[in-house]
Amino acid sequence: MSEADRAPVDKAVVLLSGGLDSATTLALARDQGYDCYCLSFDYGQRHAAELDFARRVANTLGAQQHRVAMIDIGAFGGSALTDPDIPVPDHGQSPEGIPVTYVPARNTIFLSYALGWAEVLGARDIFVGVNAVDYSGYPDCRPEFIAAFETLANLATRSGVTGDRVRIHAPLMALGKGEIITRGIALGVDYGITVSCYRLDSSGAACGRCDACVLRRKGFDDAAVSDPTRYVE
Amino acid sequence: MSEADRAPVDKAVVLLSGGLDSATTLALARDQGYDCYCLSFDYGQRHAAELDFARRVANTLGAQQHRVAMIDIGAFGGSALTDPDIPVPDHGQSPEGIPVTYVPARNTIFLSYALGWAEVLGARDIFVGVNAVDYSGYPDCRPEFIAAFETLANLATRSGVTGDRVRIHAPLMALGKGEIITRGIALGVDYGITVSCYRLDSSGAACGRCDACVLRRKGFDDAAVSDPTRYVE
Repeated sequence: MSEADRAPVDKAVVLLSGGLDSATTLALARDQGYDCYCLSFDYGQRHAAELDFARRVANTLGAQQHRVAMIDIGAFGGSALTDPDIPVPDHGQSPEGIPVTYVPARNTIFLSYALGWAEVLGARDIFVGVNAVDYSGYPDCRPEFIAAFETLANLATRSGVTGDRVRIHAPLMALGKGEIITRGIALGVDYGITVSCYRLDSSGAACGRCDACVLRRKGFDDAAVSDPTRYVE
Repeated sequence: MSEADRAPVDKAVVLLSGGLDSATTLALARDQGYDCYCLSFDYGQRHAAELDFARRVANTLGAQQHRVAMIDIGAFGGSALTDPDIPVPDHGQSPEGIPVTYVPARNTIFLSYALGWAEVLGARDIFVGVNAVDYSGYPDCRPEFIAAFETLANLATRSGVTGDRVRIHAPLMALGKGEIITRGIALGVDYGITVSCYRLDSSGAACGRCDACVLRRKGFDDAAVSDPTRYVE
C-alpha cells in the first residue's frame, strides 16, 4: 500500500515527563492508534535528567516528534521541585495537605502549551498522565480539574469556534501505580528508561526515599514485576 | 501612620503587554486599591519593543513589581505575531473569521502563568485586559472563556482546596476602545508610553495600517482625545 492510500491518522499531543506515568500514557495513546507528538518542559526542575529519559521514552515508543519547551515557572519559586532553598523531604516526612513538591499551576501551564501546539498541528486530542489515586495531594491531578480544562480548551481555541471538540485524555486517572505498570508492561514499555525520583543523583541513580521513589517501588511490588530502577542504596 | 499600622493591602497579578488595554487595566486595578504585580511575556513576538513599553507603564503606574517571563510559544508557529513567514496584513485585508494574528492558546498560557505567580504571592486576584468588543475574532477574548478560566483556577490550585476563591477580572470586557481611553485618561494613564502596533519599526514608530493601529486611532477619535502615538506616516 502506498503512502497516498493510507487513511489519515489522528494526531495527539502527549505530555511526557520521562516518568513512569507519562511513558505509560504514551504507550496507551499509541495503542489507540494516534500519531503522537510528545511535549516535555525544561522549567528549571531539580531533576533535569528526566528530560534525557523523556527523549529515550519518546524514541523507544515511536513518537512522531518530541519537543522540549523552555519555560520560566521556576522563577516564581514556591516549590521544592524548582526552588533550591526548599528541600525535598523523605516519604512520610511531609506535613499534612498539599506536598511541598507541588509546583503552582504546573499542570495548567503544561496543558495550555499542549493546547497551543495541538491547535497548530490540527490535533484534537491531548493525553496527560495525571493520576488521582497516588497523588491526591496535588489539586491539579483531580478529575474535576481535567474536566474543567477540557471545557476551557473548547472555549479558548479555534475549535471553540469551528465546533471540532478538543478532548483531554487522562487514561491513568483512576489507576493505582501497580495497575499502571501492569498495563505498560503489556504494551511493551521498558520502565528501565523512565525516572520518577525527585532527588536523582548526578549519575542518574534514584534516592529510594522521596515520595516518588516510595510510590514507584510499591507499584512494582503491587504489579509483582521486578523493579528496573537503579537506586543509590 | 507607621508602616506597621497600615492595613494589609490585597495583591493582584496584572497581565501587562505594553499596550493601551493592559495599561488601562493596571490603572483600574491600582484605583481599586490593589498592590499590583505585573507580568509580561517574552515569547518571540514580532513587536518585542512592547516589553520596553511595558516596563515604562509598570513604573509610571506604580506597580509593586514587574516580571518578564521568557516563554516558548513562538516555537509552535501558526501566528503572524510569532512566525516571520506569515505577514501581518493591513486592516481590512484579512479573510473572514479568526485573524492570522491570533496566537494559539496565548491567553490560556498567560493566565496560567499569572495563576502560578498569584499562588506563590498569596494573591487571589488576577487582572487581564481582554476585550470582546474590538477583538471578537479571538476566541480567548470572550467572557465565557474568562469564566471558564476562573472555574479552572479554583480547581487547579491550593485555593481550590482551602476555599479561598481566585477571581479573574477582565474590566475592559464590555468596553469599546474609546471608552477604555476615556477611563484611562481619567485615571492619569499616559498613552504616549503604550504601544499597539503589530508592525512597529525599529525606531518604535507605529505603522498606522495594521488592525491594532486602526482600532487604536479610531479609539482616540471616539474618545475625542488627541492620539499621542508616533506613526511612520
